Amino acid sequence: MELKVKDMDIATGGSLIVILNEYDAKKFDIHVSDRIKITKGKKTETAVVDIAESQRAVPRGKIGVFEETVHSLNLKHNDKVSIKLARKPLSLIHIKKKLDGEKLTKKEIDQIVWDIVNNKLSETEITYFVAACYTHRLSSKETILLTKAMAKHGDTLKLKRYPIIDKHCIGGVPGNRTTMVVVPIIAAAGLTIPKTSSRSITSPAGTADSMEVLADVSFPLKKMKSIVNKTNASIVWGGALNLAPADDKIIRVEKPLGIDAESQLLASIMAKKHSVSSTHIIIDIPVGKGAKVQTKKEALRLKKDFEDIGKKLNKHIKVVITKGEEPIGNGIGPALEARDVLWLLKRDSNAPNNLEKKCIQLASEIFKLAGMKNYKNKAKDILDSGRAYKKMKEIIKAQNGNPNIDPNKIKIGKFNYTIESKKSSIVKAINNNLVSKIARVAGAPSAKGAGIFLHKHVGNKITKGSKLFTIYAESKERLNYAKYILKQAKVFVLK
Amino acid sequence: MELKVKDMDIATGGSLIVILNEYDAKKFDIHVSDRIKITKGKKTETAVVDIAESQRAVPRGKIGVFEETVHSLNLKHNDKVSIKLARKPLSLIHIKKKLDGEKLTKKEIDQIVWDIVNNKLSETEITYFVAACYTHRLSSKETILLTKAMAKHGDTLKLKRYPIIDKHCIGGVPGNRTTMVVVPIIAAAGLTIPKTSSRSITSPAGTADSMEVLADVSFPLKKMKSIVNKTNASIVWGGALNLAPADDKIIRVEKPLGIDAESQLLASIMAKKHSVSSTHIIIDIPVGKGAKVQTKKEALRLKKDFEDIGKKLNKHIKVVITKGEEPIGNGIGPALEARDVLWLLKRDSNAPNNLEKKCIQLASEIFKLAGMKNYKNKAKDILDSGRAYKKMKEIIKAQNGNPNIDPNKIKIGKFNYTIESKKSSIVKAINNNLVSKIARVAGAPSAKGAGIFLHKHVGNKITKGSKLFTIYAESKERLNYAKYILKQAKVFVLK
Repeated sequence: MELKVKDMDIATGGSLIVILNEYDAKKFDIHVSDRIKITKGKKTETAVVDIAESQRAVPRGKIGVFEETVHSLNLKHNDKVSIKLARKPLSLIHIKKKLDGEKLTKKEIDQIVWDIVNNKLSETEITYFVAACYTHRLSSKETILLTKAMAKHGDTLKLKRYPIIDKHCIGGVPGNRTTMVVVPIIAAAGLTIPKTSSRSITSPAGTADSMEVLADVSFPLKKMKSIVNKTNASIVWGGALNLAPADDKIIRVEKPLGIDAESQLLASIMAKKHSVSSTHIIIDIPVGKGAKVQTKKEALRLKKDFEDIGKKLNKHIKVVITKGEEPIGNGIGPALEARDVLWLLKRDSNAPNNLEKKCIQLASEIFKLAGMKNYKNKAKDILDSGRAYKKMKEIIKAQNGNPNIDPNKIKIGKFNYTIESKKSSIVKAINNNLVSKIARVAGAPSAKGAGIFLHKHVGNKITKGSKLFTIYAESKERLNYAKYILKQAKVFVLK
Repeated sequence: MELKVKDMDIATGGSLIVILNEYDAKKFDIHVSDRIKITKGKKTETAVVDIAESQRAVPRGKIGVFEETVHSLNLKHNDKVSIKLARKPLSLIHIKKKLDGEKLTKKEIDQIVWDIVNNKLSETEITYFVAACYTHRLSSKETILLTKAMAKHGDTLKLKRYPIIDKHCIGGVPGNRTTMVVVPIIAAAGLTIPKTSSRSITSPAGTADSMEVLADVSFPLKKMKSIVNKTNASIVWGGALNLAPADDKIIRVEKPLGIDAESQLLASIMAKKHSVSSTHIIIDIPVGKGAKVQTKKEALRLKKDFEDIGKKLNKHIKVVITKGEEPIGNGIGPALEARDVLWLLKRDSNAPNNLEKKCIQLASEIFKLAGMKNYKNKAKDILDSGRAYKKMKEIIKAQNGNPNIDPNKIKIGKFNYTIESKKSSIVKAINNNLVSKIARVAGAPSAKGAGIFLHKHVGNKITKGSKLFTIYAESKERLNYAKYILKQAKVFVLK
């Protein structure tokens, strides 16, 4: 049948959806969630049907079309398109199979991932897949297959180099900006590390947010490749690339329930690593209250899973379990973290001690994993000699930033508020979740200069009147809001 | 913060959704799937956030609002509304709990159903609930709790009568129009049977579609009550009432994967029965290829589940397992089925034998369940005496139809095509699924006169040239389409 296009002027951000008037749908025996093929000229797309009950939304004889379909078929308002009923995607049968607790084959997993990447599945359908992976867990074999399928259905970075290093942190610890220190150390040692990072989703800053204070982070794959070929490294935003893109759509449906389908999380992480052809990977699992992984036991299980999957993908993998019960570094928020990093690389006395220690630990593990001799003091030597800083300047320059930026001139929010201790004591704990929350409420990560600066860490002695931490914001309103949160719980726990 | 309303002019048909521009969302740290409270004057609604990346869809400073929210808050284009972040619905925690395989309490199930009914959960979130019920099954106790919660959060029909009869058929068998015969028999015997029925979803006709050929079927609850008080009975469309409305939303997300979360299906059926205060219920489970329940074993398990739940709800319940391997009755399609029913009630020789037998069986079981004496011949006596037909005329009249309609004058599609046997033989089987498909393709149920008329049933002898079945359609195009389907598989299997 033929229908006229009504451009709904909205993007769905996911699967292709069209809206039919109830009357037309009945007439042609088409139902909610059915799929139809829409043809305009020689182009055809498949979309999921929604039904409008009112004439106002989509009148009879019209088909409501969203941006994704408008672009894909190059449609204009009132264009005529022909539609016919399409089959359901094959992967629905496979998803049902997994929901019934059965194991999936290579072909089935491949089909599911292809359908996700190509917008063939609705959010409801992807949700069933995630629920199935969550309740029935993927076997080790299925996890590998999912990893490979996710990497395959996306772009890949191919480099004629060996080894290719990568790192990943499970996250949840505020300020933990190790990538921006470890990458220049590794690259300065002559190793290749094409690092892609994420932006913050629920934290005050992701590595990409923080690096963006110093340089650009959004590049097409080709440009990323040339940056790596020039400097041995990159610190770019993975979201701008099309590496294992199924991941984003899966994360979107995981969010409402805060589900981490562990096997599928492993696959997502490893698929991104596989996409950049990495051969040697270090995984950092911080453990502690407020970190993503809360217990040693859980960390050990995850470690084993990573080692398993790494082995089966023929990758050299090292999993390090680190302390995650308090923030790493002093600054929390994009600019404050970038400043910490530059101080550290420039060997400035303001550099946070615990961040330096952790970066040296991670870099040393990488050197060891890559089979380098004298790996023990290498990371510190590279830092102390200024070679890491020099490398960071090269990377910043290659990513269109100012390599000579002075950390003391990085713009920090001009509205601030400092909390002082009311007694002499020792810092017993710092509440990760509250630090994140206050930094976000103060404006991080979208307000780059907003966040928190910690004057003290766990174990530090304090006297009455000692500065504990300072909140920075770019507007007075935001600062007040952050101060309001302060009233509800304690950031610092004293002995 | 304050935003101006952009009326998106679409209904979502489900949960409340608003769209913010990416810039505003970042500024206020609001993310996809977050919930916000929108206030206009003294009214507040909670909605789930979606993010528009383009200025075109929703410009900065605006909030894209769908019909449901427009109505609920009485919004006009460019109205100012204030928004703030809202908490997630409590039921998300309970859904996660069930997904983790734990048992839910009364309070938790109640909260989930309340949130579903009140559009507090997105489709993705309801999907997790359905997936959890499907993979972990509900315990017998949970099923009861879900049943009660579904009935509670909706309207209920209260009648000062006892007993109150109800019936339900698990379905999947074309033509199986027993309700329209059984209800007048039961009501003619002086028992009360406030029957609500569904329209077809995937079959050629639901009882409501077929009854609509003879009378109105959409009534508000108050009017249904007066129909029942007047005639002892009703044959109305349940969809026009607000009985256990959580059900529709659950069915919507079950559709894409064709999932029947059995425990949840039981709860849905029993909740509808509970909503009309029924005390004595007969459940018909047809078994056979092409019916919903395909094996005797499965039917027996379902029977036990129904008996269990019925007992726990203090209802008298009788489950009858019937033959479902071929269509019941001769007509398939709304008008053809209504004609069969009237022929049967009027004791016309055209009446289908197998439909009569089945209706007598079901009615007798009801009489027995209700403790009536001499139940054995009662149903047939009521039919033969014309009392059932008289009662049906009362019901048709109470539902605004013409009680004196002549079955031979019911409008059947004027385009038809008859298939004849090419050899002498015996009918071995009739393909239920294909019969349904052809009837639908011919236009049923929206074209009331479309469908199939079976001249023969399983076991009948045929000679070369015997009429097997006739397809009826209201347009030539539809008839041709149905004929095209015919080529692909055989409706009749001969010995």
